[in-house]
Amino acid sequence: VKVGICGLGTVGGGTFNVIQRNASSIAARVGRPVIIEQVGARRDNPDCNTGNASVTRDIFEVAHNPDIDILVETIGGYDVAKELILTAIEQGKHVVTANKALIAEHGNEIFQAAREKNVIVAYEAAVAGGIPIIKCLREGLSANRITWLAGIINGTGNYILTEMGDHNRPFEDVLKEAQALGYAEADPTFDVEGIDACHKLTIMASIAFGIPLQFNKAYTEGISKVTPSDIQYAASLGFRIKHLGVARRSEKGIELRVHPTLIPSDRPLANINGVMNSVVVQGDAVGQTMYSGPGAGAEPTASSVIADIIDIARTIEAPDSAVNALGFSADSLSNDLPVLPITETECSFYLRIHADDHPGVMNAVTQVLSSHGINIDAITQKVTREDDGCADIVILTHRILEGTMDKAISELEALADIRFPITRIRVETMA
Amino acid sequence: VKVGICGLGTVGGGTFNVIQRNASSIAARVGRPVIIEQVGARRDNPDCNTGNASVTRDIFEVAHNPDIDILVETIGGYDVAKELILTAIEQGKHVVTANKALIAEHGNEIFQAAREKNVIVAYEAAVAGGIPIIKCLREGLSANRITWLAGIINGTGNYILTEMGDHNRPFEDVLKEAQALGYAEADPTFDVEGIDACHKLTIMASIAFGIPLQFNKAYTEGISKVTPSDIQYAASLGFRIKHLGVARRSEKGIELRVHPTLIPSDRPLANINGVMNSVVVQGDAVGQTMYSGPGAGAEPTASSVIADIIDIARTIEAPDSAVNALGFSADSLSNDLPVLPITETECSFYLRIHADDHPGVMNAVTQVLSSHGINIDAITQKVTREDDGCADIVILTHRILEGTMDKAISELEALADIRFPITRIRVETMA
Repeated sequence: VKVGICGLGTVGGGTFNVIQRNASSIAARVGRPVIIEQVGARRDNPDCNTGNASVTRDIFEVAHNPDIDILVETIGGYDVAKELILTAIEQGKHVVTANKALIAEHGNEIFQAAREKNVIVAYEAAVAGGIPIIKCLREGLSANRITWLAGIINGTGNYILTEMGDHNRPFEDVLKEAQALGYAEADPTFDVEGIDACHKLTIMASIAFGIPLQFNKAYTEGISKVTPSDIQYAASLGFRIKHLGVARRSEKGIELRVHPTLIPSDRPLANINGVMNSVVVQGDAVGQTMYSGPGAGAEPTASSVIADIIDIARTIEAPDSAVNALGFSADSLSNDLPVLPITETECSFYLRIHADDHPGVMNAVTQVLSSHGINIDAITQKVTREDDGCADIVILTHRILEGTMDKAISELEALADIRFPITRIRVETMA
Repeated sequence: VKVGICGLGTVGGGTFNVIQRNASSIAARVGRPVIIEQVGARRDNPDCNTGNASVTRDIFEVAHNPDIDILVETIGGYDVAKELILTAIEQGKHVVTANKALIAEHGNEIFQAAREKNVIVAYEAAVAGGIPIIKCLREGLSANRITWLAGIINGTGNYILTEMGDHNRPFEDVLKEAQALGYAEADPTFDVEGIDACHKLTIMASIAFGIPLQFNKAYTEGISKVTPSDIQYAASLGFRIKHLGVARRSEKGIELRVHPTLIPSDRPLANINGVMNSVVVQGDAVGQTMYSGPGAGAEPTASSVIADIIDIARTIEAPDSAVNALGFSADSLSNDLPVLPITETECSFYLRIHADDHPGVMNAVTQVLSSHGINIDAITQKVTREDDGCADIVILTHRILEGTMDKAISELEALADIRFPITRIRVETMA
């Protein structure tokens, strides 16, 4: 399967690099290699080693290249991107795009052209970056009558509101800082006025409700009028303020709106902070499900672009069959990646040691741990004696091989002052 | 597309009802109707009106019925379910199952049989109920080298731990109550000893890492030894205890383990409470994404069963093309479901009114709202006078048409004591 990438900026460059880096697992999922046949870009990207790929300055050369099966559009914007995509479709190529503005505003026309040429236009990366929300709405929740969805779908806006609330700072201050840090564009209109979020909401609503794309009918309100005192008042009433895209099916029609929103502070969306994105969907069968992750960035967005490429490549490869049962082709399932016995796994540990409250117990315990190379992260001794004259010593360790911990615990349990058994619970700081 | 459902218990009954209820939107997604041709069940389900479907007491009749394209297995268990599925495959039928135990322990054999007959065996409902986590891992994150995943994938266990922590109650007490409430089985072994979670973890790990299913090599530890004091000690150190399934790729191999786990209390998984399920996945390109929702129940599980049916039905319907761009077939996109102007949408509102701190202002405000039928949910008056001698009155209203609110705000802004403009922020309590 041969791919042409047009645009080698943040998203295009990320796509290029991830396809190269994960070539073997991608091939195992598709059933044959996915090759970057050509790159069309006005300039090189210093983060990409385009050594083996053919590079052209003329992106339309890629759209006309007869060797290419799938054209990836990551140039952004409206006019040229649209012409490029329509040219590729006309040439019988499948298209993958991350261009939310183009899909939200011209998607009906583009999809129509694709239907006529029987090619696929895929756009997972257009909404919520690395979160596979298009696939979830379109396929994962396809049994449901979707009644409502809401999302934090602009990382810049959410970052600004989070900062305003956490540090009681006004909008203008935080925006300036976000611009200096590169989180916000020099012209922040698309992000802070909600236009970007509205593009994404428009796309999600069409999939959720089965309606044509209607960006121009959506209501959009930005965050520039929210003040730190609004955030404080809302907090005192038990709410947080988030910039939300909301789509709701009512008896009269569809509500499609982007605006600052008070959310009860114990609800999941209220706790999505910083540049994270998250979408909650309400279906009549499933109830509420929630999808969270990075909404932007080179490789998160590339993750979605490439998922689309792989989906299309599978269709080209084996049009009459579905995805492999375990995702990878059967003959590529790895038998030399063993499942480790628990003794060979590595964790941090919580230990609760019930011990006679004698002087020296703590010292004896730490000595045993130390003799096995087990480092201690935190240690607490509960001073309150219990009925049995014992105290609980609670210890958090650094990461250590489980087998080593087994030995240390056996030795500890053999100590005179320590009651059997010691409680051991594993710790996952990444979870 | 004709479906046969075997087993009409909780999941089978839910599947039956949702297919009937959402028949028209399902048909619009597939491109033609999905019909329940036959139901095989030992007894009727009082929640299901099987009026038009053929019902048999012999589930194997369904597997041999030549009219059926897709057999849905929701009888559960090992031996009969396996024989049923292998018979259906032998008869050239696609299979959809919610049977995590069977897939985790006999999936390699079942998938092999399906490959030989070129049919699909789909099992989205086997892991995390209504959350489309199989699709996300297998397709949505297919660009990634997955390094780690962790999930709260047994609602019963998570409910018990949540209760133990919230109310300082011992395991046995909470278990008994959960059994009385129907959250836990009479024999709770599968849930509280982690076997059910381990089935699900085994399946996710195979898709994530591209390895054969190896349930018997996974490590499993239940929650029965966790005490309320462990939960308190963990809390004092900044952690919560959750029953986690963890799969990790290390240099030596794959860690596959289910056990009680300390998680830093500010991490997302630490805040998944009650019967909710949630899975966090770490990919090299996307970083961390998280998927949350109901992990069990009739209709949430049916949501996943039917998503699989729709995926297969699309393959049968149009083998050489992908999913429709917006999920629904182009001619079924609804043009008579209008996007409403913002004035016709309905919300609760937060109002901040900056007013001269005269007696009677509050009264004037509430009178205007009341005259428009706007009910007040909460009202606060900030007593601290500011530089301008004004006070902020903050009001939360009940749900009201935006157009009505517009009129009320115009009237309020015309009042002598009220400064222009009034701040209005919409409220979403469902978000």
